[in-house]
Amino acid sequence: MTESSHFESDTRITALGDGRWSTELSSAWNIGENPNGGYLILPLLRAMSTLVEQPDPITVTTHYLRTGLGDETAEIQAELIKPGRLASSLRGSLHQAGKPRLETLAAFGDLEQRSGPAVEMTLEPPEMPPPDECIMRSGSDQGVDLSLLSRAEMRLHPDFANAGSLDEPVIDGWVRFADGTDPTTMSLPFFADCCPPSIFATHGRVGWVPTLELTVHVRRRPAPGWLQVRNRTEDCHGGRLIETGSIWDSTGSLVAQMRQVGLLLDHE
Amino acid sequence: MTESSHFESDTRITALGDGRWSTELSSAWNIGENPNGGYLILPLLRAMSTLVEQPDPITVTTHYLRTGLGDETAEIQAELIKPGRLASSLRGSLHQAGKPRLETLAAFGDLEQRSGPAVEMTLEPPEMPPPDECIMRSGSDQGVDLSLLSRAEMRLHPDFANAGSLDEPVIDGWVRFADGTDPTTMSLPFFADCCPPSIFATHGRVGWVPTLELTVHVRRRPAPGWLQVRNRTEDCHGGRLIETGSIWDSTGSLVAQMRQVGLLLDHE
Repeated sequence: MTESSHFESDTRITALGDGRWSTELSSAWNIGENPNGGYLILPLLRAMSTLVEQPDPITVTTHYLRTGLGDETAEIQAELIKPGRLASSLRGSLHQAGKPRLETLAAFGDLEQRSGPAVEMTLEPPEMPPPDECIMRSGSDQGVDLSLLSRAEMRLHPDFANAGSLDEPVIDGWVRFADGTDPTTMSLPFFADCCPPSIFATHGRVGWVPTLELTVHVRRRPAPGWLQVRNRTEDCHGGRLIETGSIWDSTGSLVAQMRQVGLLLDHE
Repeated sequence: MTESSHFESDTRITALGDGRWSTELSSAWNIGENPNGGYLILPLLRAMSTLVEQPDPITVTTHYLRTGLGDETAEIQAELIKPGRLASSLRGSLHQAGKPRLETLAAFGDLEQRSGPAVEMTLEPPEMPPPDECIMRSGSDQGVDLSLLSRAEMRLHPDFANAGSLDEPVIDGWVRFADGTDPTTMSLPFFADCCPPSIFATHGRVGWVPTLELTVHVRRRPAPGWLQVRNRTEDCHGGRLIETGSIWDSTGSLVAQMRQVGLLLDHE
């Protein structure tokens, strides 16, 4: 990764001292009018990483309080709650125009450092056609302008051409940065939340599905190349859904898991 | 539920004003020397519930910073970050002996209030023998004293008698309050974290598996009676595991889901 990657330049932070930073959010990661939720976490996570020794965000929970504003300044606050040998916990927030947009609770660790007995088990990636046999994600899939595609390239399973009439509320895809930057543990929280909602598979475009809360668990450092994503809606009731997902790297190694609460909103 | 239930009396809070409360933690919910992690959330959640209109904790993320101390006073802090019509987000912490023990980020909502289009899907409970054909959880399963059993009754799937040599890192159980108190949405975060670690099924007692972070999503209000729990270890690497679980009520309705990061520690 070079300093000139979009991932670097669009998440750059300036220290203001006293646990505060500023950042200029880009609108190049927008879905419609608003920045993608995964992108919004990145500058906050960068601020947090300056407060701890450990390099890897191992658990990151974010509440989305209000939409973010692309091409506007944001103020970040972050605080180390508890430094630890195995994990260090922090909290932080991102404000724009005087109002809180995100509240995040995260822990950093070192994924190359082993604690405890060497028990290994994992989830294997599902069968998936290679990226060049998949379909490009486009804004027309969601009826919105997807500036996000200037930053992230997405290929969806060919079955997604029949979204709305599929049997399972599942979406399979390949994702990577559009400028060729390789994934890192710091960028995985973005990739965990960049695909269309998996409920579109069975129910079609049910509208905007804003995230109320997103938790990403980073499990291993990713190898260079495409990331494979599988997301599934597990439960939907009263207009609130639970979507669970996993991300594997180009070697088939599980690198992250996510679970989120999404809201189904009535159409205007 | 009466005021005299253990759930009520062992989680009672006293307002100190200015977003602070005190509580007397009980040691009757201990696993070994320390209070169960799910129990520790309950008084903090009660404090939070006084700050919002909505009755149901719909997402509750807790970082366990240090072990709690049974039979000692704790100080709770809670703050409403963002009131909302569909969900209100709060943060809070629990301190004992001057040190932070828990940091929690939660949102409350009204699970009887529908937002958005009426899309319904869910997870069905797995096949399970009735409670009276299951095995009682005992402290000898874990080699520790389980005061917790004075508060929560647990029956484990008969297969768990062969824990250590099972094929899948899964635990199935029935849980309820020992005093007959019916479950509520406020008590589900406890039930989400009261079973033995599911990795015991395949690997036997690998030692204490402290929780680093626990997120509970409450999905529906539970009917009276037993709760059915299924927990599975999905990934284990470098001494950190991901355990995912679901809880159904006595009518087979999915009432909560959980995911946590647990740590495997080297034996002394």
